[in-house]
This record gives sequence, C-alpha cells and structure tokens, in this order.
Amino acid sequence: MEKYKVKFMPDNREIEVERGTSLLKAASQAGIYIKSSCGGKGTCGACKVILISGEAKSDRTGNLSPEQLSKGVRLGCHTFVEGDLTVEVPQESRLQAHQVLLENGGASLLRETSKDLLDLYGLHPLARKVNIRCSEPSLTDNASDWARLSMELKRVLSDDKPINISLSVLQSLPENLRKANWDLSVTLTDIDSEYTVIRVEPANERPAYGLAIDIGTTTVVVYLVNLDNGEIVDKQGSYNKQAHFGDDVISRIVYAVDSPENLDEMQKAVVETINNLIDDILKRQNLRAQDLASAVVAGNTTMTQLFLGIDPRYIRLEPYIPTVNSTPSVAAKEVGLNMLPDALIHSYPSVASYVGGDIVSGALATDMANSEEIILFIDIGTNGEIVMGNRDWLVSCACSAGPCFEGGGILFGMRAMPGAIERVDINPETLDVKLKVVGNIPPVGICGSGLVDCLAKLRKAGIIDRAGSFHLEHPSASARLRATADDKEFVLAWAHQAGGDKDVVITENDVKNLIRAKGAIYAGIRSLLQAVSLDISMVDRIIIGGGFGNYLDIHDSVQIGLLPDLPPEKFEFIGNSSVKGARIALLSQKAWSEAQELARKMTYIELSIGTTFMDEFVSALFLPHTDLSQFPSVENSF
Amino acid sequence: MEKYKVKFMPDNREIEVERGTSLLKAASQAGIYIKSSCGGKGTCGACKVILISGEAKSDRTGNLSPEQLSKGVRLGCHTFVEGDLTVEVPQESRLQAHQVLLENGGASLLRETSKDLLDLYGLHPLARKVNIRCSEPSLTDNASDWARLSMELKRVLSDDKPINISLSVLQSLPENLRKANWDLSVTLTDIDSEYTVIRVEPANERPAYGLAIDIGTTTVVVYLVNLDNGEIVDKQGSYNKQAHFGDDVISRIVYAVDSPENLDEMQKAVVETINNLIDDILKRQNLRAQDLASAVVAGNTTMTQLFLGIDPRYIRLEPYIPTVNSTPSVAAKEVGLNMLPDALIHSYPSVASYVGGDIVSGALATDMANSEEIILFIDIGTNGEIVMGNRDWLVSCACSAGPCFEGGGILFGMRAMPGAIERVDINPETLDVKLKVVGNIPPVGICGSGLVDCLAKLRKAGIIDRAGSFHLEHPSASARLRATADDKEFVLAWAHQAGGDKDVVITENDVKNLIRAKGAIYAGIRSLLQAVSLDISMVDRIIIGGGFGNYLDIHDSVQIGLLPDLPPEKFEFIGNSSVKGARIALLSQKAWSEAQELARKMTYIELSIGTTFMDEFVSALFLPHTDLSQFPSVENSF
Repeated sequence: MEKYKVKFMPDNREIEVERGTSLLKAASQAGIYIKSSCGGKGTCGACKVILISGEAKSDRTGNLSPEQLSKGVRLGCHTFVEGDLTVEVPQESRLQAHQVLLENGGASLLRETSKDLLDLYGLHPLARKVNIRCSEPSLTDNASDWARLSMELKRVLSDDKPINISLSVLQSLPENLRKANWDLSVTLTDIDSEYTVIRVEPANERPAYGLAIDIGTTTVVVYLVNLDNGEIVDKQGSYNKQAHFGDDVISRIVYAVDSPENLDEMQKAVVETINNLIDDILKRQNLRAQDLASAVVAGNTTMTQLFLGIDPRYIRLEPYIPTVNSTPSVAAKEVGLNMLPDALIHSYPSVASYVGGDIVSGALATDMANSEEIILFIDIGTNGEIVMGNRDWLVSCACSAGPCFEGGGILFGMRAMPGAIERVDINPETLDVKLKVVGNIPPVGICGSGLVDCLAKLRKAGIIDRAGSFHLEHPSASARLRATADDKEFVLAWAHQAGGDKDVVITENDVKNLIRAKGAIYAGIRSLLQAVSLDISMVDRIIIGGGFGNYLDIHDSVQIGLLPDLPPEKFEFIGNSSVKGARIALLSQKAWSEAQELARKMTYIELSIGTTFMDEFVSALFLPHTDLSQFPSVENSF
Repeated sequence: MEKYKVKFMPDNREIEVERGTSLLKAASQAGIYIKSSCGGKGTCGACKVILISGEAKSDRTGNLSPEQLSKGVRLGCHTFVEGDLTVEVPQESRLQAHQVLLENGGASLLRETSKDLLDLYGLHPLARKVNIRCSEPSLTDNASDWARLSMELKRVLSDDKPINISLSVLQSLPENLRKANWDLSVTLTDIDSEYTVIRVEPANERPAYGLAIDIGTTTVVVYLVNLDNGEIVDKQGSYNKQAHFGDDVISRIVYAVDSPENLDEMQKAVVETINNLIDDILKRQNLRAQDLASAVVAGNTTMTQLFLGIDPRYIRLEPYIPTVNSTPSVAAKEVGLNMLPDALIHSYPSVASYVGGDIVSGALATDMANSEEIILFIDIGTNGEIVMGNRDWLVSCACSAGPCFEGGGILFGMRAMPGAIERVDINPETLDVKLKVVGNIPPVGICGSGLVDCLAKLRKAGIIDRAGSFHLEHPSASARLRATADDKEFVLAWAHQAGGDKDVVITENDVKNLIRAKGAIYAGIRSLLQAVSLDISMVDRIIIGGGFGNYLDIHDSVQIGLLPDLPPEKFEFIGNSSVKGARIALLSQKAWSEAQELARKMTYIELSIGTTFMDEFVSALFLPHTDLSQFPSVENSF
C-alpha cells in the first residue's frame, strides 16, 4: 500500500498514512480531534478542513458553497489522501478537550447532597488498604507466603469472606514481602462475596484512592476520591473523544458496528479520554496509577457498552434491546484504564437501552428511592431522561431530546465553559443585547442555560412567534435581525465584540431545534404522569440534574415550556448527579447494592409504544405549549 | 547492536541474532532445543555443538578434549556469536520432543484406577455445556440479552449458584444469540461458588472437552477428556522445553530468578510445550481450541509456580518457602494456553516447596486418603516424593533423588521411548549381554527400569562391588569391561549393534549416581517410617507411580535396595498418577474439593531438619544397604 505524508496546520504535525485514508481519520491518528456530529456521513459539515497543498479526492461536499470549495475547504470525513498533503484544521472544527467547566458557578453544588448520603450509607468502600505485620518464616514455621499473608489479613479484617489474590500480585509476592521486611500495606478490593489482594507494598500511611467516573455522550468527568475518608481530592472533565465519531449515541452506534475495528476504536477513544483525565489528576496530586484501587463508572447504556467494548448494535434497532443491564465488574487492565491493573471497575447497572447507569446513579444521588415525597428527577444531558416516584414505586423514560442543551446542533452552541453566553437580555424596543459570559471574556458561543434564556427573551421581544418562526419585520428595524442565504438569524454579539471574525448569532434553525428538544422533555414528563395517572400538582419536588443543571433559570424554563409550571420552591438542582452517585457507590457497599436494587425496581416506560408521547410532543412544539392552561403563570403579553 | 546470521545444520535453519548471543540461546530462538542439564553453567557438557564455519568466541570449554576442540566441538552455552556462523547440532545434544512414550507397555495401566475413582466421586465436571432455547425479545418483553440468557440458564441448571458471564463473551453476545436464532449451546465453568458463561454458540450435540495436564520437570503429558462422559479421548506427552534451562528444579530456579525476562522465558517455555501437545491432539481429533473448556494441572511446586509465572526464588533457599500452596484458578488467556480464552485452569495445591501438586494429585489417584490400610505411595520422577498414611493420617517428604531414573546424569540415560534398553541380562561367566529394547529396534540408550535392572545384574555378575566400584580384573576378561581416560565402563551394546558410531555403555560414574538416587529414596522411606514410629512391615500396600512406573522390576529394585524388602504382592503400579489425579479432579467437583482437603491434611516432614535422613542416606549408599538385615531376601551370593 502506498503511503503519503500529511501535515496538519497550524500544529505543524506530520504523519504518514495509507493512500485513501480520510482526513478525519488521519487527523485522529495525528492526535488532532475533529468534530464529526453526524459520525462521518458527510451531512453535518462540522469536520471542515482546508487543503493548503497536495492531492486529495473528495467524494462528497455536503453543503459547502462553491466559494468555500474554491478556497480549499473540504469535508474531512469524505476527503481522502491521494498524495503528500498539507491541511489546515480551523479552530471551529476542533473538539476542545480538557476545557470542561465543572460546576464552579452554581451555589447549589455546595449543598453536597452526596455528603449527606454518605452519612446515611456509612463509609465502606469497594476497595481498601490495611496495614499488617507478618511473622517471618522458618524451617519449623514454613507456611507459604500467601498462607502467611492471608492468615494475618483474615485476623485483621475479622470477617468470614474468602480472601483471594490476583495472579499478578502473587507473581511478585515473595520479593515484595521480603523487601518490606514483612511490614506491609495491602490493598484489597472488597466486594459482596470476597476480598482480593491487588497490591502489596511496604507499610505506609498513604490512603487508597478511587475514581468516580461519569461517561457522558458529550463530556467525561472524573473525581479522585480518598477511600479512607470519602473526600473528593480532585476533579477534572473533558470532551468525550468519541465525539469524533458522532454527536449522539445513534451516530456512535452506527459507526461502532460497522466493523470490529471500529468498535475497538470507539472503546479506546473513551478509555483514552478517561486516561488523559487520570493522568492530569495524578500529576497534580503527585500520585501514581498504582494508587488507584477502584472505580465506579456511570454512563448511559450505549456509553457503558462502548466503554466495555460490548456490541451496541441492538440498542438502536426495535425492540431496542441492550446486551446487558447488570454489567460485570472488570479489571482495569481488561479495559485499559491507567490504574492498578487488578483494580475492579464497577459499572452502574442500566434499566433499559435508553435509561442507563447514569440515570440510576443520579436517582441514587437524589435518594428518591427512600423518599416519602413524590420526586420528579429530570436529567438533561445529550438525551433527556426522567425518573418519577418515591420509596414505593419508580417509573422512568427517555425522550430523545438531542444534544441541543449541550451545544449540539446549534450553530454557536457550546458547553458551559469560559466564553459561553449563559444569560441573554434583549431590549424589546431596540433589540439591544446584554450578555453574561462565563469567565467574563468575549463571547465565543452559547451554552444550554444561555439558550433557554435566549429563547425566552427572543419570544418576549417578539422576535419569534409561538412556533419559533422569526419575524424579520420587527418594528425596531435592528440590524441584528436579518436573513441569510438559507436561514434567518439574530446577532447576539458582533464579530468585533466576540473578538473573532464572525458575528455570534442564533438562527431560526437553532430555535426550531431548541423547541423540539424542550418539547420532547416536556412530553416525556407528561407521558410519565399519564402512565401512573398522576397530576403534575401531586409532584412534591423536581430535581434537575445534568450538563447545564445549576445554571438553568427556572423562570425562563417555565416560560418556554421546558419545565412544568410549578412554584419555584419545588425545584432544585443537583448538578452532575451521575458522578455524584458514582462516588457514593465507590464509598459504600450498601449504596452499591442498593443501586442494583434501584435498577431492578425502576419500571421503564417505552415511549415509542402507543401514541401518548407523540401526541404530547406535537402539542409541546409551541412556546410554551399548545394548551396554555398547562402554563397559567406564563405571561400572556405576547 | 550488530546482528549476525547463524545457520543451524543439518536443519539448514538460519536466524539473525545480536553479537554476543550464546549458541544455546540462538538455537532456542531458531526452534532447535539443545540439552542443558546444568542450566548453562558450562559443567555438564550436554550442549555440545560443532562449529562448521564463521566466528564465535568460547569463554569456557568444560571437559572438552583438545581433539574435540580441534574438530570444532564447543559448549553451546558458553560460545558466543561474533560473526556470521554455521553450526551443527549433533543428534545427541538435542532434546527429543514429541517422542515420549505413554505407558503403552505395562499391563497394569489397564486397571484404570481412575475409572473406579470416577464411579466413586460421580461425574460433575469443572466445566459443562448445556443446550437451551431463549424466547425472542419484543417491545413488550424487552429484557436485556444477558437477562434473557441467564434466566433460561437458571431454569435449566436449576440451582442457586450465581451465573456470571465473561466480558469477552458478553462483547459479542448480541450477534451470537441472533445468529443462533436463540437456539444455543452454552459452555460454562462450574466451580464451587458460581457459574461463568465462557462460550455461546448455535445449538449442537458436540461435548465440551477438558485437559488433564501433568507438568513434570522432565516430561509434560496432556490428556484430552470428554467432559460429558469422562472418557480419555486422546493423550500425548513430550519433553518439557524448560529442560533447555537445566535438568532439575534447582537449575531452573537459578535461571528463572536471574532476571524478570528469564522468568517470563521459562513460563513461556512450558506453555509452548503444552500448546504444542494441545495442537497435535486438536489436529488429530479435528477439534478447535474453543472446544477446550477447562484444565486441571498437576506439577511439583516449582513447575506450578513457573507455569503461573510466580517468582520461585525462595523455594530453593532455606527455609524453603513456596509463594503459594493453594494456587488461584486462572483464565487460559492469562497464562497463554491455547484453549477457550476464559476457560479456567485449576492447579493442584501443593503441600510444601518439595511436595507439590503432582504428589497431591497422585495421592488422590491412589485413594489412600479414604483407605483403611496403611499405604506407602512412592512417586519416582525427577525428584522422589513419598506419602504414607491412610484415611486418618498422611505424612509426606521429598528426598531429592535427582533425575537418574528419568535418564538425567547418566551418560546414555534416556526416557522410556523406542530405542531405550528396558531389560538387561548379563552372563556372569562370559559377561555376554542380552537386551530388551523398547520398540525392538537397535538400542539408543537406557531408561529407568533398564538402569535398575542393569545395576542388579552388574552386581550379580560381580562387575561392581557393594559400593558400586568397577572390578576391571573380572575373570571373564571381557572386552566389554574397560577403562577410559577418566572413568570405567561396561559396554551394553557395541556401536555396530546400536546402529551408531558409539558403544552404548554404563560408567562407574553412572553407577555411583544411581546408588545415590536409590539411596535417597530408600532413606526417605525410612525417615518417614521413623517420623511416625512405624515398622515397614506395618505397611499394607506400596503403590509406585511416576516416570518409569510400570516398567520397574520389583525383584531387581529390592536387590539394589531401592524398594524395601516386602513380599511382591504388596507392590502395585499406578503409572502417571499425577495426570490420573488431574483427570479425576477435572471430572468431579467433589474430588477437586477433596484434593484441597488432602493437601491441607498431609503433614510435611522436612528431611533437612535433624540428622535422621542424612544417617539413613549414608547407610543406603551400598547395594542393597549397609544393614543387610533390612534385606533378608536379597541373595547373599555376592
């Protein structure tokens, strides 16, 4: 096979690839991650690159204009290497890694729900470290090394669970015992049925650490947790590198099942994402991979299966069957996580193909399964999942809201990170705009909470009608409101304000996408209420988790019909409930076994059966809703 | 690093190695296995090679004669590549693989002790295959694939043990279920506490198979067993490729602990030995590696630790501590065996550093732990281990007999295979010799049973005295009895009879080695008797297992003082008891748990404590013994 050199600019990074390799793939091999919302189908146009020199062949140009094409702009996914090349990857085509903001704004995260829960469950982590001292062997006391060690462990642990040892620890046990002069720190996994020794080192007072990991479709978050006292020592988040293969779970599945290599590539992408986060945290804390003794992972069903390399094909085909809900615990070395090789990785159980471990984890973090009150838990991530119930019953559903609120499918959409518009004020007379931007820097794009706010304000200012259509003939005659070749848009920030060469805008297409997303979530809530014949007024509390969690404005959300019209005091935020639940399970065997129970107990309502959801969805495609009686508090002024 | 080509003749196999590589190592890399009894120390002279052309440097020549040196003969272990080379590896320097004879001579093996034992324990193998039919999923019956499969398995297996599934089977489960149209054959490991699914395939009537494996220091034997009915389907044995690193466990340990790479090399050598045997058997039986669902391995403590890659260093250093006696079960993929990747490999537990799993396995095969009679079980392999007792008590010891009876340390020593002298008759007048050779072909060497016979006949003919010294002034003046430069020897077969260019002889050095070996075993028996204050007459039965098992002549053995002077009807042979015990455990969970109990129950007597063994050993360095009253039946004619 012929090989050619491809140089990526402005990185000035050069690699060699086989003739016919797509530029998307080549960039990935060079460690440059390009957005690919549609998963390489050539439809989304997110993977634009610019040919500087050399030969490449494109078999699809999507919606690129002749002008763009003449400037060398190509779709990375459908342009293939035919000779030595130099390619520019513009900033907007890149996945921004290591930049995810972790709940450092909202006050509510300080409530630390999970702290209270830990008091409730008690500290009994899934791995632990104990210090012991063994007697030295002699001709008359010639028990084997392992017999000696395990007898002393049995004494110190003083319970009846069998104690095992991993082969790799056993292989080097003799030297490690003697180097430590029989004075030892022993790290063990501690699960329901057994202990397993996974590390033996000279006695020391350093704690064992664990990881709580939230694998979101868009974002991955890792907490480093001290297993001795339960404290969160550090945290870090970044984009999920799988985004390179598509924005949503469906495009990921389509890509993954194309060949066994693709599934493997997808598995490695998320593992690499997590390992990069681990490496950063370890460096910062001056720790080593061997200090990481356990992990609990929470992700939706597709993310969990992809993380474990399990064929996800039937998740997307009717009747939507996951391979497994109760995933087996696996060793770190089996999946490639940079931890103690025999550390156990526990994945939160799923309920169904579209109500995954992240929701079970979140539900655990809300403690709703022990509540007398009826709780409605809404997790707005790339999908939108809803759980309702109390200690007697739990129902759940998924409503395919799409990734809008995480910035996906929105022209200037982005995650809540520095540069993201999080609040929008529009003067209804002049259409002048005031923005609040994360980090108080020039705006780059707009995040979920900003989008909700923007939608409410666009409506309030009369820029859009109840169906989301733009009214270009607005009396203000502001230059901000304008038509483009194929859309209408409103300028939130002029290019010179944004510090770039483009105006930051919201388009009619964005607005329609947002209405579909909010409509899906509201329809999901309504469908769940109908499934159990409850009125919304009977719900005692609404807990909101997920990507934009703490930043969301309740008033705005009700105005646009995303959330039901209930008194503000019934709402609360829990932030990233998925990683919170993962931490609790990591620290408490009782919580972990309750999580299994919770997953079994949660009744899944499949919204695609019957017409309820579709009827509700269509009714919800207005601002706030077709049936205004459901939103009595919404101002009727417009 | 400079690299050079080394060509091996007459194989005409060429490889490239780094400058300074020993010819021993280079040959191994070329797949040519050279004997190295001393483990590469340059003392045994077994690894002779002949330089044909090119440059090599020797830093040691051992006992090579100037004449040999001038002919290009070198020690492979201490000759290093300095340029392109051509090297001849003579036949006598090669390990002969795949030629080990499996008990196809003795009638006693037809007794099939293990068959009776299986009746006793009942068939309940450590892995099994079941056929099930699952219902297809639908929108209203949307349990996960694994939930569907495990529920049906639970119904069919109808017991309460948890059912797990290996990650690798889970990864491809969805396609496998649907390709089979939900009509399935499921292979499971079935151990004490749980089932684990290790294979899912379309329904069929083929059985699952298991392997019973005896890892001897010298020889490795594999039985293929049908797990449905317990039948031995095929068997094969070969030399242990570790022999390349030394004949006995001590030289193996010395080599293995020199560096982590060496330990790894040693582990791979035995795995490669087993895999070659597996491949031959699979080919012959038209099976695939995936059909192999379980294995039970029996080996001495060092062999077991090396097989699992466990540092064996402290086995050879006082106080002789093994790393582990109860070795954990491991997956085939963890050690590299060519089976179902998640098939469990169970290793027989050891008692101490020098009473290993092979002895526990053998003791199980004798059923002595359930016997009312007192049984003395002697396993004569590369070491010599002894177990004595009945259902109430068991004691054991190891007596470092060395590998003589397997052909090691004997000039023309060899295993019982075609060409091995197994019976010797010497006319006391003329010293004419009559031989019985395995396979009725010209003699190549002499095996264990032949050596015992030879020793008795040499003594009877007055060729050697009670201490084993040669009497060159024998009245017959036969040319067979002669002195060489540094030894004395007796010709068993002339070169022209042997079809080679060398006379087949037994030397005084061989005889002394044999006396030490038989003395060690007899001293071990005596020490064990003293440890429990029993007289030999109180032993009801003596069971002999191990390498030369069935071929041994009881009369000869008593004549030379290898076995105690008891009536012949008290003796019986069990053959390779180690592989027999492995098969029973493979087929019966009850037997396998009894094996663990047996290992715990067996009291180990360390012969190096106190002077009993040494005193007994010194007394036993005569034919038959210093104390003739212990051998009343031995003819006093000489």
